[in-house]
Amino acid sequence: MFQLDRRSFVRALTLTGLVSSAEASSLVTSAEANSKSVTASPQGDALPAKGVTRSLARYVVSARTEDLPESVRKEATRTMLNWVGCAVGGSRHETVDNAIGALAPFSGPAQASVLGRGERMDVLHAALMNGISSHVFDFDDTHLKTVIHPAGPVASAILALSEYRPVSGRDFLNALVLGIETECRIGNAVYPTHYDMGWHITGTAGVFGAAAATGRLLGLSEQQMLWAFGLAATQPVGLKVMFGTMTKPFHPGRAAQSGFTAALLASHDYTSSEEVLEASNGWANVLSRDPDYSEITEGLGETYEVLLNAYKPFACGIVIHPAIDGCIQLRNEHELTADQIEGIELQVHPLVLQLTGKKTPQTGLEGKFSVYHAAAAAIIDGAGGVQQFSDESVRNPVTVSLRDRVTTVVDPDIHEDQARITITLKDGGRRLEKFIEHAIGSVENPMTDADLEAKFIGLADGVLPSGQVRQLLDLCWNIETLPSASLIAEGAIGA
Amino acid sequence: MFQLDRRSFVRALTLTGLVSSAEASSLVTSAEANSKSVTASPQGDALPAKGVTRSLARYVVSARTEDLPESVRKEATRTMLNWVGCAVGGSRHETVDNAIGALAPFSGPAQASVLGRGERMDVLHAALMNGISSHVFDFDDTHLKTVIHPAGPVASAILALSEYRPVSGRDFLNALVLGIETECRIGNAVYPTHYDMGWHITGTAGVFGAAAATGRLLGLSEQQMLWAFGLAATQPVGLKVMFGTMTKPFHPGRAAQSGFTAALLASHDYTSSEEVLEASNGWANVLSRDPDYSEITEGLGETYEVLLNAYKPFACGIVIHPAIDGCIQLRNEHELTADQIEGIELQVHPLVLQLTGKKTPQTGLEGKFSVYHAAAAAIIDGAGGVQQFSDESVRNPVTVSLRDRVTTVVDPDIHEDQARITITLKDGGRRLEKFIEHAIGSVENPMTDADLEAKFIGLADGVLPSGQVRQLLDLCWNIETLPSASLIAEGAIGA
Repeated sequence: MFQLDRRSFVRALTLTGLVSSAEASSLVTSAEANSKSVTASPQGDALPAKGVTRSLARYVVSARTEDLPESVRKEATRTMLNWVGCAVGGSRHETVDNAIGALAPFSGPAQASVLGRGERMDVLHAALMNGISSHVFDFDDTHLKTVIHPAGPVASAILALSEYRPVSGRDFLNALVLGIETECRIGNAVYPTHYDMGWHITGTAGVFGAAAATGRLLGLSEQQMLWAFGLAATQPVGLKVMFGTMTKPFHPGRAAQSGFTAALLASHDYTSSEEVLEASNGWANVLSRDPDYSEITEGLGETYEVLLNAYKPFACGIVIHPAIDGCIQLRNEHELTADQIEGIELQVHPLVLQLTGKKTPQTGLEGKFSVYHAAAAAIIDGAGGVQQFSDESVRNPVTVSLRDRVTTVVDPDIHEDQARITITLKDGGRRLEKFIEHAIGSVENPMTDADLEAKFIGLADGVLPSGQVRQLLDLCWNIETLPSASLIAEGAIGA
Repeated sequence: MFQLDRRSFVRALTLTGLVSSAEASSLVTSAEANSKSVTASPQGDALPAKGVTRSLARYVVSARTEDLPESVRKEATRTMLNWVGCAVGGSRHETVDNAIGALAPFSGPAQASVLGRGERMDVLHAALMNGISSHVFDFDDTHLKTVIHPAGPVASAILALSEYRPVSGRDFLNALVLGIETECRIGNAVYPTHYDMGWHITGTAGVFGAAAATGRLLGLSEQQMLWAFGLAATQPVGLKVMFGTMTKPFHPGRAAQSGFTAALLASHDYTSSEEVLEASNGWANVLSRDPDYSEITEGLGETYEVLLNAYKPFACGIVIHPAIDGCIQLRNEHELTADQIEGIELQVHPLVLQLTGKKTPQTGLEGKFSVYHAAAAAIIDGAGGVQQFSDESVRNPVTVSLRDRVTTVVDPDIHEDQARITITLKDGGRRLEKFIEHAIGSVENPMTDADLEAKFIGLADGVLPSGQVRQLLDLCWNIETLPSASLIAEGAIGA
């Protein structure tokens, strides 16, 4: 692949006299976007990839529970616990009410639970609803390499399945790991071009994770798993343009439901492409540029993506966590109040403004996509929880006023888990600074087990009685030894 | 938009000394691929499109049945009749058996019929199954401008809905027209780049058609219709790599089911993007290049895409119809038999080999994607029906032998509905030629009402008793005056 210095190349193009400088700039932008896909191997012809889908399918149907390292089982348990807390916590949200209201008349038999609620639905609808509720606060786990939220599509599907067919806690954990491995490896292969093109990777890659995990528990053969992947690939869920609407949490839910559907169809020999990941007009080539298939096939069973999973201390997109972390630290260290502050400058990674650049959010949901609001609320409340992303918080005049004093500077040298916060005080223009090296909740600065418990309780208390919350926590910590994973679903049934 | 002479530009780039000539060539290829999207208006900034989704939503919720021209109602009736025949005819196929076997345990109440069969399922599953069976023989209608199969996603959804809520025949026909208008206009806006990128446009555009038609019958407001389009857009169904597998007919079925789901969610105020078609990271920009939004917004209520709908005389993809038509005509004119033939040369449009270039198909399904097999079977049987695309026909030694004597030449000057067939006879090398100007079933050479009846009977006889087939035909012809469209579904229930 050739590398060009952008500025001098634009200048050189302009010097050719064929194009204006604006046209040259456009051309280079265009070339950069496509450069990975058009540049070939040194021989001039890229060899078509072979057997990528099959390698993955073979691994998923054969990887043994007893080979999972202790660290992997532990992290998968933390992932599950965090996901259950999010699903219970989100279950009473209007988004879930609307979805159930719309679709309950078409649900099949009462096979599986909607966590935190009283309704039971068929397993496919239950997977959809639990996937929605677990993401409604944007508070679930994140695979930071790809910004996939791994548990939503996978856990939603297999927990529903475990209420329909007996699944031991050990097998559940193995399927969870394999589903996460599948979606995150596929995500690694296409990130960032896939995401940059406009896809919400949690739904688009997540459908493979759901297919893998449910397919494994359904006992698919290698051949059937290939078909399940084909059926999953042909139903990508999620455009990023949906961020800030109820359709964002629909993505992990629908991914769970569609991936599960794919595995069920495959289990009845419903045929599909057998090389959907790598075919020249297959998923990766259609939905990304220059996929790196080695991310899918190398080190299967040796490395585990779940070990890279992170848990959010704040109820919003991960990209604004460093800014929130820094604002809370400055607030606490200096006992700041909003009226002392002249202005807040945030130096942030470019993605922060691309994803969360809303200046004047009007609803709690929009507030999740406003680094301006998040920083203001963090100063005022010292927190970034569900309350700080409520309609009430977003419309609070004090918050609105402070939000209007927040400015941002994009700095490409700042990493995604970093931020530099500079607060100027009214009092003589004194400046307070904080550089966040790794935000709380990042892989380098993870939430402890105690942090996760506190988060779980904060989410579930009020939805379920306190005693039930404690029991549910214990079930989650002990998932590996449960005779049936369905105990967790039953333990999360609400009024 | 600026235009460049490719060769001189590559040379100029090379002269900058920054890149080699191969790199320059790559860069220009890349730039060309993206140039439509990055090159701007003469002012230097392309104006973002505005209100495209809203214009369409407004039209769909307000267009009146009584304003539909007679010709439109007639063509919509022919479309419906052809679709019912295909759905009944395909209903006993293994593909439908497998899908029902996999998903029936999760179906909701028995709300709607699977045409041609005895099962009843919830409306969403019935929409899925009827969409699958109507496309399983690749024998349904085709909007030739976009190769969308319009009825599948739309009729499958609204016929199921009409069994759940009362829908008059007139309202049904209006919803069918509006659904077809929606999907085909969106298809027009993104064709051919969308298709070329690898998307099976019947599923990806079809989900909008299903959302529009069901949303109209559910009485969505303009605001809700916007959300329904957003929810539809975020669930595109269908990669072309699935052609030749059971997953191809899954696409219109899933589009029907997902579009219907989108409308149901929107009817319960499940929010979504309000500008999903035209947003910079919306559906058209993510899934195509250089969309032409005027195709969506101009002439709404004045022109009707259903008038461009065509019906297939042959049970395979439309692109090989000209070759089949020509082979049958030559066979009949010269009373040809396979053993007389030295070789068959087909001069065809480039798409023919891209889509149907399989040289040695092994199954009936694969035979649909082999112009070689289709031509051989047309000579041998004088037909291109369901029988000619059975496993038996594909494996018949006489057909296989003749197939191996078929050669193809791509000719870009030949239109999609044209072909030139040259048959060389063993007898002294005599050559027979036929140029097909417009294949039978094209808009210029349409099937007559009698042709459609004969096709319907050929498909439905054997699935349903003959008397019932005749009654069902009459119901279809008279749909506009039926008190309830559900009479058609009830009339198509099989043993």
